[in-house]
Amino acid sequence: MVLLPDLSLGQYSLVYNVISFTIATMGAAFLFFVFAQNRVAPRYRMSMLVSALVVAIAAYHYYRIFQSWQAAFMMDTTSGMYVASGQPFNDAYRYVDWLLTVPLLVVELVLVLALSRDLQAKMITKLTVAATLMIILGYPGEVASYIDTPTRAFWGTLSTIPFLYILYVLWKELGKALEQQPPRVRVLIRNARLLLLATWGFYPIVYMAPFFGIYGAESQMVFQVGYSISDILSKAGFGLLIYVTACAKSEADGWSQS
Amino acid sequence: MVLLPDLSLGQYSLVYNVISFTIATMGAAFLFFVFAQNRVAPRYRMSMLVSALVVAIAAYHYYRIFQSWQAAFMMDTTSGMYVASGQPFNDAYRYVDWLLTVPLLVVELVLVLALSRDLQAKMITKLTVAATLMIILGYPGEVASYIDTPTRAFWGTLSTIPFLYILYVLWKELGKALEQQPPRVRVLIRNARLLLLATWGFYPIVYMAPFFGIYGAESQMVFQVGYSISDILSKAGFGLLIYVTACAKSEADGWSQS
Repeated sequence: MVLLPDLSLGQYSLVYNVISFTIATMGAAFLFFVFAQNRVAPRYRMSMLVSALVVAIAAYHYYRIFQSWQAAFMMDTTSGMYVASGQPFNDAYRYVDWLLTVPLLVVELVLVLALSRDLQAKMITKLTVAATLMIILGYPGEVASYIDTPTRAFWGTLSTIPFLYILYVLWKELGKALEQQPPRVRVLIRNARLLLLATWGFYPIVYMAPFFGIYGAESQMVFQVGYSISDILSKAGFGLLIYVTACAKSEADGWSQS
Repeated sequence: MVLLPDLSLGQYSLVYNVISFTIATMGAAFLFFVFAQNRVAPRYRMSMLVSALVVAIAAYHYYRIFQSWQAAFMMDTTSGMYVASGQPFNDAYRYVDWLLTVPLLVVELVLVLALSRDLQAKMITKLTVAATLMIILGYPGEVASYIDTPTRAFWGTLSTIPFLYILYVLWKELGKALEQQPPRVRVLIRNARLLLLATWGFYPIVYMAPFFGIYGAESQMVFQVGYSISDILSKAGFGLLIYVTACAKSEADGWSQS
């Protein structure tokens, strides 16, 4: 559970506005991925549909986070500060979101390559199982008390094992499959892979922050803003890269929109 | 009515997050079934439309259950526990949901086979009437007091008769129709049928739990989580199997997306 600090009007509003900005971005990305589907060849449309689902799920959860943020604080008119209302701020919505979206993100990445049916099925099974395990194993540590370092470290370490396995599959096995792709597609998929690594890397930093004594007022604010930016890049931004890849592949196939 | 135990923050949050997760999953499944329709041949689209209706109805009811769960509890600041607020937790939303979705689930299963018009109409009539009776007959036992074992047992037994009839139709009569299907479709439909049996099997277990003296705090929590997982598998998971079946049938028909 998140310790709720007293926040100034500016601090409270910054998080509030960033969360609302994220809802708007995810919603707009959803519309884009739905309506831009017919701009790529039919075989790449499933990966865009999955991108659309990811940002729709994220929009829903950011709406819930927004409501939870509003309910968790109230204005204390004597001090002019926002103070805890007594209702908990349910940060676990993020976990619930990842449980659905993280496996889907690896699915989009594999689908856009249009590999052979066998290789695709194998790759998707490996990556989704590992991604689901990674999220589930992180949860008990995340909901543990901020001062219970051993519990946090234990689950965090367990959750790192599937994460390393995902990196292995993406770099080693997917890397091999990339050799058969057109040069432009290779570059785009490498970028998409790096974007995943960079944005997913923010989550363990927040997870480990309490180890360094960081769990106070400003840090919580930074985490909320950081999570939002990370989610926008890893979901809407990543989906956009997948869309550009699908366009490049459609072009390489000689397909054009009639 | 459900006896409301005192719940720790962790217990309360687990049910709360699982219910929210279910809303997100059903919503995402709805979007998928709507937008993936044009990936299968026109004659199989009706079964996907029915899948979409099922998960949309479920998303609505889970939203209601979410609100009811929130209203039924309040944080007791002295003990730090969630205690009954005095408002009842309306578990009957689940029944209302099943009354609509259970008949529709058997409809999707029959529709995707694209049987002759006569056989299809007969099969749908038998299965929907039996499914509706099964739900209606279970209701009086479900809302009976937890200690009124005779009433519960009486309605439970009555409700089992149409359930056994459904199993007979699915295994005996549908089994015969399956012989004319391509091998891959036969496997998929058999899996879908087993998924229905396995997930529907969870409901009678919860129904009969009071017979064994199980109606306390933790058990209620287990039931809510169990119901949610069962519903996700039997609605979104089942619909996904129906979609894969529709893809296999479209391919067997020589249809491809233009």
